[in-house]
Amino acid sequence: MSATEVLRDVLIILIAAKLAAEIAERIKIPAVVGEIIAGVLIGPSLLGLVGASSALDVLAELGVILLLLQVGMEMDIKDLAAVGRASVSVAVLGVVLPLAGGYAAGLALGYDSNTSLFLGAALSATSVGITARVFSDLGALATVEARTVLGAAVADDVLGLVLLTIVVRVVGDGSVSVGTVLSTVLLAVGFLVVTTVLGGRLGVWLFRIIQRYSRAAGTLVALALAFALAFAELADTAKLAPIVGAFVAGLALSRTESRERIARELTPVGHLFVPVFFLQIGIAAQVDRFVDPTVLGVAGALFVVAVVGKLLSAAAVLSAPGDKLLVGIGMIPRGEVGLIFATIGLSNGVLGGDLYAALLLVVLATTLMSPSLLRFRLRALRGAQRLESEDAMPASGWL
Amino acid sequence: MSATEVLRDVLIILIAAKLAAEIAERIKIPAVVGEIIAGVLIGPSLLGLVGASSALDVLAELGVILLLLQVGMEMDIKDLAAVGRASVSVAVLGVVLPLAGGYAAGLALGYDSNTSLFLGAALSATSVGITARVFSDLGALATVEARTVLGAAVADDVLGLVLLTIVVRVVGDGSVSVGTVLSTVLLAVGFLVVTTVLGGRLGVWLFRIIQRYSRAAGTLVALALAFALAFAELADTAKLAPIVGAFVAGLALSRTESRERIARELTPVGHLFVPVFFLQIGIAAQVDRFVDPTVLGVAGALFVVAVVGKLLSAAAVLSAPGDKLLVGIGMIPRGEVGLIFATIGLSNGVLGGDLYAALLLVVLATTLMSPSLLRFRLRALRGAQRLESEDAMPASGWL
Repeated sequence: MSATEVLRDVLIILIAAKLAAEIAERIKIPAVVGEIIAGVLIGPSLLGLVGASSALDVLAELGVILLLLQVGMEMDIKDLAAVGRASVSVAVLGVVLPLAGGYAAGLALGYDSNTSLFLGAALSATSVGITARVFSDLGALATVEARTVLGAAVADDVLGLVLLTIVVRVVGDGSVSVGTVLSTVLLAVGFLVVTTVLGGRLGVWLFRIIQRYSRAAGTLVALALAFALAFAELADTAKLAPIVGAFVAGLALSRTESRERIARELTPVGHLFVPVFFLQIGIAAQVDRFVDPTVLGVAGALFVVAVVGKLLSAAAVLSAPGDKLLVGIGMIPRGEVGLIFATIGLSNGVLGGDLYAALLLVVLATTLMSPSLLRFRLRALRGAQRLESEDAMPASGWL
Repeated sequence: MSATEVLRDVLIILIAAKLAAEIAERIKIPAVVGEIIAGVLIGPSLLGLVGASSALDVLAELGVILLLLQVGMEMDIKDLAAVGRASVSVAVLGVVLPLAGGYAAGLALGYDSNTSLFLGAALSATSVGITARVFSDLGALATVEARTVLGAAVADDVLGLVLLTIVVRVVGDGSVSVGTVLSTVLLAVGFLVVTTVLGGRLGVWLFRIIQRYSRAAGTLVALALAFALAFAELADTAKLAPIVGAFVAGLALSRTESRERIARELTPVGHLFVPVFFLQIGIAAQVDRFVDPTVLGVAGALFVVAVVGKLLSAAAVLSAPGDKLLVGIGMIPRGEVGLIFATIGLSNGVLGGDLYAALLLVVLATTLMSPSLLRFRLRALRGAQRLESEDAMPASGWL
């Protein structure tokens, strides 16, 4: 595809994204749900206006990195640390329960042990993108629930990585060495500790120098994005999701003097690229595969495991502050992390086409349902106050 | 290349661009020259930190579209029309003189008629990107010279398109029909007339509706970019350069009520993506080919034709307002339009590797020399006033 062809796709995506957001605003559903549905509509499964391309993947990845950078910048690392124990507990249970439930469901449905293991592992993932976007759209990032879920999602990424390493080895070689598991854990945790502890200081120091000595226009915003991209690359090197790196970079930048200016200049950039990520989820979904009865049946069973597992994980952590149902709902979306498991399972032959489609449907269903539920629960917690305008909501006034 | 790999390239480009801009600011050369040199440094010819990729092409194309959109938004169509006749005269002479000169130089150097024709045609192009960027950086877009050059560059694009059609047919079939030439001209001129006349009204009407009824965040900036991309696609359909469409879209948006807010929100987006285009020029330049004595000799002769041809074209239009030397210098850069001719010539076998490299060198030399000359001439015209800070300059105070 030529650059001009890709830009035509970008044109269609921008218009579809904003039409979807405007309609969603009027019929009172979250913008992100509108965007994913718009992606399904314009994608190859239905209208075929936009196809998949590697350049679109790059723009979508840039979008989700921008989103997590912005979300990180709105967080204070101390507030995140305050819910750290609760986050990790929710994350651990939120991996263990769906893993066990998915494994049991797989065996009950008559699949073999390896396949069932993969199904369980795919259900254990948590996608931070959707929840972060919804909390951000609702002005609720400062709530204790948002912090608990985002902390848990980061912890979940580490656990998911370990699980992926173990499951792939067990399925492939029949066993996994303790050394492999340990080195995977050490690398991931090492990345998080080093970037979180040193990243903040490095960011403060670096952006003080940039603020003081920069003379060319746009240096600040460009280097803030470069900072996030660098952390995303580091996370990728530690085999974590790049967006975890972008989130940690945001945490670091939130402590710099230039914080407000960076956030202000990143806002319109985010408005352009963040929706590309969410439309891309819809564009990549092959909805024509979902009409098969077997697929629907398996997907229904896995869906129940997926939702109940995460809700229970939040409810079971008695020490967690805030509303447990809200935290549980925030953990529901599987997003792109579940897709990674499904894709690997398909490529190594453990999952057949039916199971792959069923997992895709679960990922899509959990991703599409949670924004509305989150919004509904937030609204209930905020009492009779109507969500007339998302932007007009106070940041955390109801807690 | 995976999305993560491309984003690593984007990371390197962002850092290189801002380092280059900061250094350029301090050693008093235009930022755009620093960015192109930085592109050569990090590109495959030298350090090899960044390679060519289709995703980077998309980001670079997005950057130059953003640039021309922003430049168009700073222009008033009435001011542009006021210099219309002078612009067209400069454009026509600016095509004819280098075409004739390049043809003669080709024959004198011993090349055949077809090859000489291609050399001349490649020298006739004018790249609007460089000049627009330099005038914009110097806060001089409102000057009569800037308007004359930008108008001439748009006219030049139409002429270049016609010339390309003719030259490719003559070289391929030995002749060209009057109907082909006429339909090419009609399509291109038709696009410009329709988009300029109707585009302004459509833009005012459309963005009044958007401004009034939009409730979701970011709709305005996203649809402004979509508007520019739509015009770029239309221009591409009329076989004009997409950036001509983006420029016309900018002219249309400059008349809308939301003009200032759109311009403000596009600014940081431009800071991120516009430099990608200029670094990409450097990244794509294969400087290792230039050391050949034959290449250097031919390039020297063509360079003289290229520079003298454009300077003469401006000087000869006696009716043109403003400083003729400044207009002439503004017409010098060949940029990507010259590259298109060279690439087509290489692919249809009319140009050998040596001539292709020589043309590349001329494109790079004219592109690199004119920003400094433009700045120097503008400074001389502004009298003793020092260009201490580009941002601090008045918009058009010196005329």
